[in-house]
Amino acid sequence: MTKLFNDPAEFAEDQLEGFLDLYSDRLVGVPGGVISLPPKEPQVAVIVGGGSGHYPAFAGLVGPGFASGAVVGNIFTSPSAAHVYSVAKAADQGKGVVLTFGNYQGDNINFGIAAKMLNNEGIDTRIVVVKDDIASAPEFDKRRGIAGDFTVFKAMGAAAAAGKSLDEVERIGNLANERTRTLGVAFSGCTMPGAADPLFSVAEGQMGVGLGIHGEPGIRDEARTSADQLGTMLTKAVLADAPEDAGARVGVIINGLGTTKYEELFLLYRTIARQLREAGYEIVDPEVGELVTSLDMGGVSLTVFWLDDELETAWKAPAYTCAYRKDPRPLGTQSSYTAKSATVAEEDLVAASPAAAALAEKVRKAAADVAALMREQEQYLGEIDAYAGDGDHGRGMVRGAEAAVEAIEQAPQDAGPSQLLKLAGRAWAMMAGGTSGVLWGASLEAAANTLDDAAERLAPEQAIVAVQAFTDSMVTLGGAEIGDKTLLDSLLPFAQSLANAQDDLPVAWKQAAEVAVQKAEETAALSPKKGRARPLAEKSVGHPDPGATSMGMILRQLGTYFS
Amino acid sequence: MTKLFNDPAEFAEDQLEGFLDLYSDRLVGVPGGVISLPPKEPQVAVIVGGGSGHYPAFAGLVGPGFASGAVVGNIFTSPSAAHVYSVAKAADQGKGVVLTFGNYQGDNINFGIAAKMLNNEGIDTRIVVVKDDIASAPEFDKRRGIAGDFTVFKAMGAAAAAGKSLDEVERIGNLANERTRTLGVAFSGCTMPGAADPLFSVAEGQMGVGLGIHGEPGIRDEARTSADQLGTMLTKAVLADAPEDAGARVGVIINGLGTTKYEELFLLYRTIARQLREAGYEIVDPEVGELVTSLDMGGVSLTVFWLDDELETAWKAPAYTCAYRKDPRPLGTQSSYTAKSATVAEEDLVAASPAAAALAEKVRKAAADVAALMREQEQYLGEIDAYAGDGDHGRGMVRGAEAAVEAIEQAPQDAGPSQLLKLAGRAWAMMAGGTSGVLWGASLEAAANTLDDAAERLAPEQAIVAVQAFTDSMVTLGGAEIGDKTLLDSLLPFAQSLANAQDDLPVAWKQAAEVAVQKAEETAALSPKKGRARPLAEKSVGHPDPGATSMGMILRQLGTYFS
Repeated sequence: MTKLFNDPAEFAEDQLEGFLDLYSDRLVGVPGGVISLPPKEPQVAVIVGGGSGHYPAFAGLVGPGFASGAVVGNIFTSPSAAHVYSVAKAADQGKGVVLTFGNYQGDNINFGIAAKMLNNEGIDTRIVVVKDDIASAPEFDKRRGIAGDFTVFKAMGAAAAAGKSLDEVERIGNLANERTRTLGVAFSGCTMPGAADPLFSVAEGQMGVGLGIHGEPGIRDEARTSADQLGTMLTKAVLADAPEDAGARVGVIINGLGTTKYEELFLLYRTIARQLREAGYEIVDPEVGELVTSLDMGGVSLTVFWLDDELETAWKAPAYTCAYRKDPRPLGTQSSYTAKSATVAEEDLVAASPAAAALAEKVRKAAADVAALMREQEQYLGEIDAYAGDGDHGRGMVRGAEAAVEAIEQAPQDAGPSQLLKLAGRAWAMMAGGTSGVLWGASLEAAANTLDDAAERLAPEQAIVAVQAFTDSMVTLGGAEIGDKTLLDSLLPFAQSLANAQDDLPVAWKQAAEVAVQKAEETAALSPKKGRARPLAEKSVGHPDPGATSMGMILRQLGTYFS
Repeated sequence: MTKLFNDPAEFAEDQLEGFLDLYSDRLVGVPGGVISLPPKEPQVAVIVGGGSGHYPAFAGLVGPGFASGAVVGNIFTSPSAAHVYSVAKAADQGKGVVLTFGNYQGDNINFGIAAKMLNNEGIDTRIVVVKDDIASAPEFDKRRGIAGDFTVFKAMGAAAAAGKSLDEVERIGNLANERTRTLGVAFSGCTMPGAADPLFSVAEGQMGVGLGIHGEPGIRDEARTSADQLGTMLTKAVLADAPEDAGARVGVIINGLGTTKYEELFLLYRTIARQLREAGYEIVDPEVGELVTSLDMGGVSLTVFWLDDELETAWKAPAYTCAYRKDPRPLGTQSSYTAKSATVAEEDLVAASPAAAALAEKVRKAAADVAALMREQEQYLGEIDAYAGDGDHGRGMVRGAEAAVEAIEQAPQDAGPSQLLKLAGRAWAMMAGGTSGVLWGASLEAAANTLDDAAERLAPEQAIVAVQAFTDSMVTLGGAEIGDKTLLDSLLPFAQSLANAQDDLPVAWKQAAEVAVQKAEETAALSPKKGRARPLAEKSVGHPDPGATSMGMILRQLGTYFS
């Protein structure tokens, strides 16, 4: 709903004043509309127009390489012939004028009268009427103009900027018009400034197929579908109306009508691009955005513009308007990107020593077992997370552990434990999601970096060093302290117990793991101090911390591989 | 309401796929987001990010002169630290990394962890947190980031593109942040893809002042005001929070949140620009549009960016992203426009002969009398127009005739009748509005062109020539025929009667005018064939055509000046 206005009767004029203030460095206000600062060399003047409420159509498309001027009517109302005449007269540079607009009765009358007035004065003036909306009539000449305004206007703007004659600009405009087809759907109506109710409405859950940009009736109402289904429907319908023998190279516009937002349009483009390519088309310089809107209407349209060499040149040509800029030479970048390897670089690979290879076997086994353990505990971990978190800790641990297993399975058969844990950590961090996932992944990698795959002997103390690196990483990255009710409440006591142990590693690890499990259980008494759980802190009291709990479980599991 | 989606859980990922397909000529998808093709010379990598749903923030701001990469989270959800790390790693060019984002807890945690991971690896990584929203807290450091993301990101993007060091880019980012203030209002909530209800709502007729871009509470709810009042409130509030001694040159952003459309934003800019200038500010390169949105939320914000020399250079610097392009050298235009004179050119002025001067006096008198007559008949003409038209014929005739009188009064005292009628016609066409206004104006001008202000003698036959030119113009421009129920139904019989008359002009005119009045009355029997009245044709039967009626009245009035 349009919410910002002063006197609704002055809306179009007042907003134009703001617009002209904003772009005073490049546009000039004249009675009835706006013109561009003149080009350095005189050229054919391309004058676009119609009612307001369709921004960037029409005033936003004025500038080098596009329209020379725009006539600005009231909201959804044709400008008067006098205003068309005034804008054309101001933009004329002695090379003739093309008036171009969508096929609506009021515009046909007023632009038509203005053309006669200009011709009477000796200003050679032509008319190109846009007729792209396939839903509005079976006969081409009865069709109204909607988002196809953009392709036809741009083709002529580019031709004029290239210095072509009036005859040529007019011919190219008509050619573009004959090769442009659009179909739109509306999800919701639009409200005129100051009005209490929308100009038209679409029933909840429905969409108006082919409904016009001022609420003119469409072909039919349908139940709203998924983005994929809608994209397929629009593509099929537009392609079914393809001009004859028009070739396989097409410009494409996915146009948002006002409240259908960019992310939705990108989603739709994904499907439509796929469909067009499957149909054998090559997409040239697609445009996805709001190009011809209808105030705050919800809806979207697909325009296909069948190119030939001449139209492709015009479609790709540079343009610089307030709302639309095209520059085939963006500020210098390299022409391609070579992906940095996400895995361990070749030169870092070392052949595992026999001792390292033996440990690597244990790592493989342990990873698989940990993943199985997490699957087994997924539901319980989710339940205890749900008291104060969002209940996805079990899921995240399963995703992380499974990603680690997959990375390990894809590693070279002779990879050592350091390399395996590094790959496992990276995969875990990327796939687990959430803060605990990245902490687990990064800390596994920190532990991996303490191991040497080429070492002839792996002393038990190295396990302590690796655990210490893992723990330090958890502390540094997570920023939590003991008692904050996080995984550190089981990990830190574990690391300390292991470091202080007098026994051999297998025994020491098992004892330390029991400490971790015990400490995890004791977190039930705590209230969380960190992260997302904090706002719901009191709800978690009486339940153990899920991160500390899964840590205890895994540390206990790892104790089974020492012998 | 967000209407286009497939599986809502996959929305952010799926739309990103469409986005990357669309801009595959310049962007590269990497795990967790998107990066620009690398610049030709290595530079500091500026990594922006946050949740999806804010397009063009964040992925639309990636490109030369702006962000090096964007991390793309789910809708309104912080990306994971692993994804931040991944995007930064891919964009890093060995010159260091700045991670920059709005001040939200999730982003602070995840970007913070990623920065530690990158620093641990030896990639020098800094963090600049945007805190522009004055409504979110009195203390600067507790404020969240909204549209001010744009100024801070752009300042750093420009500094990086200029080859500045990591220290410098970080310093400029923090400086921009300290000098950026935003206040927004919300008119309506936004709906998550697939959700049945909006995430939050604003009561009808109210606006939420300072409400955040995910629906976070604002300062207060207020009754919605006019655009002028809102502009004044926003300007005052933002200026009241101005940084100390920050100078008088400011960048300005009027940001639309999603369903508040361009025309509304231009209207608001009109007021805000005026207010800022009255407060002594100079506005530098203002931006009005959708820069940081919130799906389909209704609302708007004002950002003021206090510039110093360094920030002004960065603010004005070129940039080329998918959604935002700035080029200080638009395709060549002239630097100014010299208005073509709307009045008669000096060289066309001729001194009126005595005979012409006498006629000019009659034209002045007649114009004033016709305007008075139209005022007298305005109500009646409106009534008979309302049966099948929109009831504004009387108003239009008054506006046209009064504009003609004004133009004549402003003409040189020695102007001849041709010049006066030309000026009168142009003013009538421009000011009357509607089709009949432009026909009257253009036809008056056609009549004027038949007169010679230098002629020693003005023969009575010249009145017939002028009437014929007037009539021909009406026929040619209007395209109607006799019997179509238009003003031609009285004008054509008048012209014919005058041309065929045997009597002297005074008598002949009076007789012809009575024919015109009679024929106008007889149009009551007709059904309209042309123009807007056609759809309601049957309602007009039994009532005379308003255009034919006013024509008859005026022709009769003009008969009183012949003697």
